[in-house]
Amino acid sequence: MVYTLEHTDPGGARLGHMTLTHGTVETPIFMPVGTLGTVKALTPVDLKDLGAQICLANTYHLHLRPGTQIVEEHGGLHQMMGWDRPILTDSGGYQVFSLRDRCKISEDGVAFQSHLDGSRHLFTPERVIQIQEILGSDIAMAFDECPPSTAPIAAIEASMARTTRWAKRCIDARTRTDQAVFGIVQGGLSETHRAAHVDAICALPFDGFAIGGLSVGESTEDLHALTSFTAPRLPKDHVRYLMGVGTPENLLHAIGAGVDIFDCVLPTRDARTGKLFTRDGDLNIKNARHAHSMEPIDAECACYACATFTRAYLKHLHRSKEILYARLATLHNLTFYLRLMADARVAIRANRYAEWASQVVSRRAEGQTLVRGPESRG
Amino acid sequence: MVYTLEHTDPGGARLGHMTLTHGTVETPIFMPVGTLGTVKALTPVDLKDLGAQICLANTYHLHLRPGTQIVEEHGGLHQMMGWDRPILTDSGGYQVFSLRDRCKISEDGVAFQSHLDGSRHLFTPERVIQIQEILGSDIAMAFDECPPSTAPIAAIEASMARTTRWAKRCIDARTRTDQAVFGIVQGGLSETHRAAHVDAICALPFDGFAIGGLSVGESTEDLHALTSFTAPRLPKDHVRYLMGVGTPENLLHAIGAGVDIFDCVLPTRDARTGKLFTRDGDLNIKNARHAHSMEPIDAECACYACATFTRAYLKHLHRSKEILYARLATLHNLTFYLRLMADARVAIRANRYAEWASQVVSRRAEGQTLVRGPESRG
Repeated sequence: MVYTLEHTDPGGARLGHMTLTHGTVETPIFMPVGTLGTVKALTPVDLKDLGAQICLANTYHLHLRPGTQIVEEHGGLHQMMGWDRPILTDSGGYQVFSLRDRCKISEDGVAFQSHLDGSRHLFTPERVIQIQEILGSDIAMAFDECPPSTAPIAAIEASMARTTRWAKRCIDARTRTDQAVFGIVQGGLSETHRAAHVDAICALPFDGFAIGGLSVGESTEDLHALTSFTAPRLPKDHVRYLMGVGTPENLLHAIGAGVDIFDCVLPTRDARTGKLFTRDGDLNIKNARHAHSMEPIDAECACYACATFTRAYLKHLHRSKEILYARLATLHNLTFYLRLMADARVAIRANRYAEWASQVVSRRAEGQTLVRGPESRG
Repeated sequence: MVYTLEHTDPGGARLGHMTLTHGTVETPIFMPVGTLGTVKALTPVDLKDLGAQICLANTYHLHLRPGTQIVEEHGGLHQMMGWDRPILTDSGGYQVFSLRDRCKISEDGVAFQSHLDGSRHLFTPERVIQIQEILGSDIAMAFDECPPSTAPIAAIEASMARTTRWAKRCIDARTRTDQAVFGIVQGGLSETHRAAHVDAICALPFDGFAIGGLSVGESTEDLHALTSFTAPRLPKDHVRYLMGVGTPENLLHAIGAGVDIFDCVLPTRDARTGKLFTRDGDLNIKNARHAHSMEPIDAECACYACATFTRAYLKHLHRSKEILYARLATLHNLTFYLRLMADARVAIRANRYAEWASQVVSRRAEGQTLVRGPESRG
């Protein structure tokens, strides 16, 4: 892959693009999450219609179901899921370590039991790279150890050292030249440890660098502080990825700190439970005040749901547990996120990112205040 | 509405078209079921893409949720659901009478409690026509009494007489000139009673005539016998609707008997539970033999699911309870049904309907036999 940094805004926000095996991706960008090889409720055609340039899938989940072999029989994940644009696969490190009671960690790797059927598996750095090469993603992630953020300092330090050793093994295990591999910086909530791990991971010949171990339950202040601290320390000539973040406000903060790419289940998962993002704050379709609303979700949104349907109808679909609701809500929320990224790119190019981001955040906060009363009654 | 009978095949199958307020519908036709104002898992754009010319919604269900008033606030069902082609609304008679313990029948109408929240409602012939006029469907159905097929003869006779009186009240209650109203012939499984009720209902100035009270648990032999008996007795210059039928084989039989339009939840509901229709018999995606299948559902099908995805991927989506599965399966099954209707129209025009239908049925039966072994193991 080639990452091209086109422009840096005076505040540090970056405009660029990644040239990957399956196409070019403009940055900053948000990657819709398709854990099991499908962005829930959407087809590849929908994703293209809403302007998705890259999506994410998960090595752990795909390895368990349908299984790496079945993806291989399709010729890779792109063929299986009918998506011909870039894919990033997460390594599964985060998932494996969240199994806690069902995983056993050694220097070699992690032995774990499937959350689906209890079957036993071993993920080593080599195996995780091999699986991702079979999946055929454009970007593979290194296999990292993710200790709980509450772990004692000594445990975090040991884990960082192991993640660095595993990172080297990941690089040594690579055999495909058409797949990028990104390293992951850990270090918990300590600036000292983050700085040390940036030095360790960024010394390795990765194609891009990710900030891991955030958005795992820490406060927004910690998230912002660590992002602001870590992102600018990552190499300028490589793409920067903040894993698992987040809300529109957190994305805007991170872009300001110089982050380029994001993934999060928020817009898709929240869509299904009733939360819809708008320029004037978020709304909950479950709220009684939408029952008779002949307005679209967001009058300024160009998505199919907003162009076609009222809030009252969407509320009816949601209440009736109709599948169409999940689809329309997902379409809308992803359209909101991708439009936010497109607008950010325009603002960066115009050297007015901070001002624009501040306006977006203010308008959303004001809208949220205005609707808070009725929302809480609903 | 205007029904035009274009051609009758030597065996009695009819080719025609209905000119309705929201467009023209070729017959024979199948109407996808959108009970609550959405064909489950599909958008109006999907429905158009797969060639749906008309869809069905349900008065009982829409009256309870979102409520007739909310549909009215949208300006009608077409506006609410974003569908600008014809809609037929069932009257809710069938649903109200299936409540059994929760409904009280009188000459005036049926008092019933909502299956959703126990709220009390009264459906009279006048009210049901009024609601359907508010919904704004192209075709409204008369409010009929639907006794259980196991009811004693005297009860069936009393019910038929009441349905006839209610039919007259429905006609008297009409105020819209842009909405057709169809009468419903009852009469249980007795040819004598069917003949009598055809005479009674078809003497009334309805725009079309439906055969009700079939596909409610009787044998295929009874269904075929009563359809063959009743359909040809309906007026030739009006459209004929067999309610709630059914399998591809039962549709083909009924078309041969001179029926023009159909609705059934089968293709959409079966899709969601894993049954997929093909020219070579039906398959169950849950079956183990599809786990590694790189074939589409049906190599001869032109739908998006068959053009894009393998059985193995669809099985993966189904097993993982992914929403996309329901959508792709529904797209496929409705494509199959609508293609079957399109092919039937071609065969009727060519005066070879019986021969064509027999080939379709044989090929499906042979295919089913071929796969029965593995299917039963799955």
